[in-house]
Amino acid sequence: MLLEALRQEVLDANLELVRQGLVIDTFGNASGVDRAQGLVVIKPSGVAYDAMRAADLVVTALDGRIVEGSLRPSSDLDTHLELYRAFPGIGGVVHTHSHFATVWAQARRSVPCLGTTHADYFHGAIPLTDPMTAEEIADAYEANTGKVIVRAFEGIDPLEMPAVLVANHGPFAWGKSPKQAARHGFILEEVARMAFHAMTLNPSAEPISSALLDRHYYRKHGAKATYGQA
Amino acid sequence: MLLEALRQEVLDANLELVRQGLVIDTFGNASGVDRAQGLVVIKPSGVAYDAMRAADLVVTALDGRIVEGSLRPSSDLDTHLELYRAFPGIGGVVHTHSHFATVWAQARRSVPCLGTTHADYFHGAIPLTDPMTAEEIADAYEANTGKVIVRAFEGIDPLEMPAVLVANHGPFAWGKSPKQAARHGFILEEVARMAFHAMTLNPSAEPISSALLDRHYYRKHGAKATYGQA
Amino acid sequence: MLLEALRQEVLDANLELVRQGLVIDTFGNASGVDRAQGLVVIKPSGVAYDAMRAADLVVTALDGRIVEGSLRPSSDLDTHLELYRAFPGIGGVVHTHSHFATVWAQARRSVPCLGTTHADYFHGAIPLTDPMTAEEIADAYEANTGKVIVRAFEGIDPLEMPAVLVANHGPFAWGKSPKQAARHGFILEEVARMAFHAMTLNPSAEPISSALLDRHYYRKHGAKATYGQA
Amino acid sequence: MLLEALRQEVLDANLELVRQGLVIDTFGNASGVDRAQGLVVIKPSGVAYDAMRAADLVVTALDGRIVEGSLRPSSDLDTHLELYRAFPGIGGVVHTHSHFATVWAQARRSVPCLGTTHADYFHGAIPLTDPMTAEEIADAYEANTGKVIVRAFEGIDPLEMPAVLVANHGPFAWGKSPKQAARHGFILEEVARMAFHAMTLNPSAEPISSALLDRHYYRKHGAKATYGQA
Repeated sequence: MLLEALRQEVLDANLELVRQGLVIDTFGNASGVDRAQGLVVIKPSGVAYDAMRAADLVVTALDGRIVEGSLRPSSDLDTHLELYRAFPGIGGVVHTHSHFATVWAQARRSVPCLGTTHADYFHGAIPLTDPMTAEEIADAYEANTGKVIVRAFEGIDPLEMPAVLVANHGPFAWGKSPKQAARHGFILEEVARMAFHAMTLNPSAEPISSALLDRHYYRKHGAKATYGQA
Repeated sequence: MLLEALRQEVLDANLELVRQGLVIDTFGNASGVDRAQGLVVIKPSGVAYDAMRAADLVVTALDGRIVEGSLRPSSDLDTHLELYRAFPGIGGVVHTHSHFATVWAQARRSVPCLGTTHADYFHGAIPLTDPMTAEEIADAYEANTGKVIVRAFEGIDPLEMPAVLVANHGPFAWGKSPKQAARHGFILEEVARMAFHAMTLNPSAEPISSALLDRHYYRKHGAKATYGQA
Repeated sequence: MLLEALRQEVLDANLELVRQGLVIDTFGNASGVDRAQGLVVIKPSGVAYDAMRAADLVVTALDGRIVEGSLRPSSDLDTHLELYRAFPGIGGVVHTHSHFATVWAQARRSVPCLGTTHADYFHGAIPLTDPMTAEEIADAYEANTGKVIVRAFEGIDPLEMPAVLVANHGPFAWGKSPKQAARHGFILEEVARMAFHAMTLNPSAEPISSALLDRHYYRKHGAKATYGQA
Repeated sequence: MLLEALRQEVLDANLELVRQGLVIDTFGNASGVDRAQGLVVIKPSGVAYDAMRAADLVVTALDGRIVEGSLRPSSDLDTHLELYRAFPGIGGVVHTHSHFATVWAQARRSVPCLGTTHADYFHGAIPLTDPMTAEEIADAYEANTGKVIVRAFEGIDPLEMPAVLVANHGPFAWGKSPKQAARHGFILEEVARMAFHAMTLNPSAEPISSALLDRHYYRKHGAKATYGQA
């Protein structure tokens, strides 16, 4: 069986989404990529989480060809592939319908950076995609979902902004590994929930200063990070 | 004992409502129908869930005559019967006072379709019934509750819209089986909760396009469904 | 030891408040009355719930004299006593700071009857007391809390309206027994939470019609009740 | 090993924050001070809670010098130290990103005292700091966070107001011991959540009267306290 270690990581990331309460019904999937071999491991479509084993995951090439696996891959496969092709630095992708992130997507609002919890993980507001056109929806819908995400990242470094809201749909998040992608999906939900309540309490609340944003973001990321143990 | 398999399915659906947190106190009931025999199995009235056994359920004809069972049927029996008579394609019905669905019913608003989570299960806004008149309330209240639901479905296919909000009361949901009815009751609560928060965040949020609605609904339903395993 | 059965009922009601999530910290207490003997059993003040035994409860006369018990009674004793003296039909009282009931008390709003969940237990809007004056607060504060409640019930039958919100404080609820008082405290919290969200969604939501209110309330209460098993 | 008893108290306070749901991810820390020896015990930075032992905690002097411990101290150490130096009566400090307290900090609003739940623990509105300037953020950020807190307490007794919101960041709370600090952090979250919902329901809700504030606060604190067992 190909990619046993990555299969296990992707399985763990899928189950972590469930443990963190980010998945309603079967609305969720995680994948990982092996950049050296150009292969992606992804959750099968519509399979119950509690019965899923590493061997049930599907291996595909970056162009979508199935390389190993007898089950259909997640129906969102083509979105994941677009992200892997456009963002070469990422190693894992998750998609959920987690409650408050989806609420912002349904309200068609990007999530403003109102506090340091947000700034510790995301370097600015969480982008919102354009709504998709009837043409984009009619044909190659899942690949076009990826394209509309990539379009929203013009001028944004996906490694400093590891999440997005697809308008009227829900969030995608990513990271260097499937594990980090799942963690970003979890933190996104927390900051979306905080921003929801803060904007309800004070509809004219302002984003934090760029000084505070940079201080917190770069405390945990990049060459000058000081957080945690050396 | 009649209909042992259906009794078990209906018991399971009742207990699933409790497991999913859709039932407050004893405000909830599930039923199922055997179309060949024209018999309905329903929860008894005001019995504690943790002591309920399949044998405690009540079997009635479609006209409400009790065919088997020593306990009184759910006080909402006549509403269930109206739905089974008016909607020949359905096999199970649930009624709950689940929190956010009831909130929309109390606010007298139908739940707009703001996202794909909703569109994956319900083909449009969740209908709201008219408020009931004093006459409809005074006599045959439960049967009239069913009639006011049926009236709200003129021009709507109940199989593409398996739920409704009864004004100032709460939701009913249905499906091809008691299990599917309970699942629709659960998804309804999730989408009602999402729409509540999205409308709070952006009171002028718009429903999704019909292109996106159709794309998601028919991805999971009908002849061209592609979701899940073949 | 006096009143062993009632002590157990009152202990159970106190623990039920905790199990239902109605108690934050030690903000909660339940009591019961033995009308024949004119004796009240109440929780001791500031004692941890998990260590409390029936023998720790305090027995007092209806005038507040301690009859049995070595611990101080709940600091809210005098409020309970006012209620027992003014409302001769009640057998148990609970006080909590349950979240949404307290929110309505802090917002100084009575809880409107927006749906049948509410109407099944409370025959109309949940009353709100007047704010207490500096004089009422300075001396005999707890007894005056009871008096301000009783004043809010002029023209209201406390058996048809078994709960109240004390302005800027929180709810009291009662019933024929300590068990029923605790149940009313729980249902109050649920309907306060529903009404909170319904009014947020639709600030001009209207109370239900008197026809619907009466239909639901008297389905479960009074001589013509039809709910549950005979 | 120095300060074994205090180490255990600080460990317990850290774990209590997690048990009470006040910590997201690793956003939380507790410390304690030994006033006689002038030593502080604090959580190490970025260490998982479930693996943390008393021996992993870090001991520092009040000027920040590490006295014992091989791990880096919490990155918020300098904020804790500012508080210990400025508020000589306190024995423990906690910092969390608990949801609703952080929401008020993000909305840049102090939490008004709307009810007796709040008044039982905090003698007035929970103060909000000024936003920090780019200069305060650029250098000695954590120490400056402490200084901006101390500035917000001019004219306020930190023992009667054992919590603060740092603008766009989150809450700090303190008490006579690490245990009491954690308890104040927990009660703060509850009153922040209540005030959030009360202000949403009634945006012109007024703080409680000073008579009611004093009555409740001094029922539990100071020489005339009557709450609990003697």
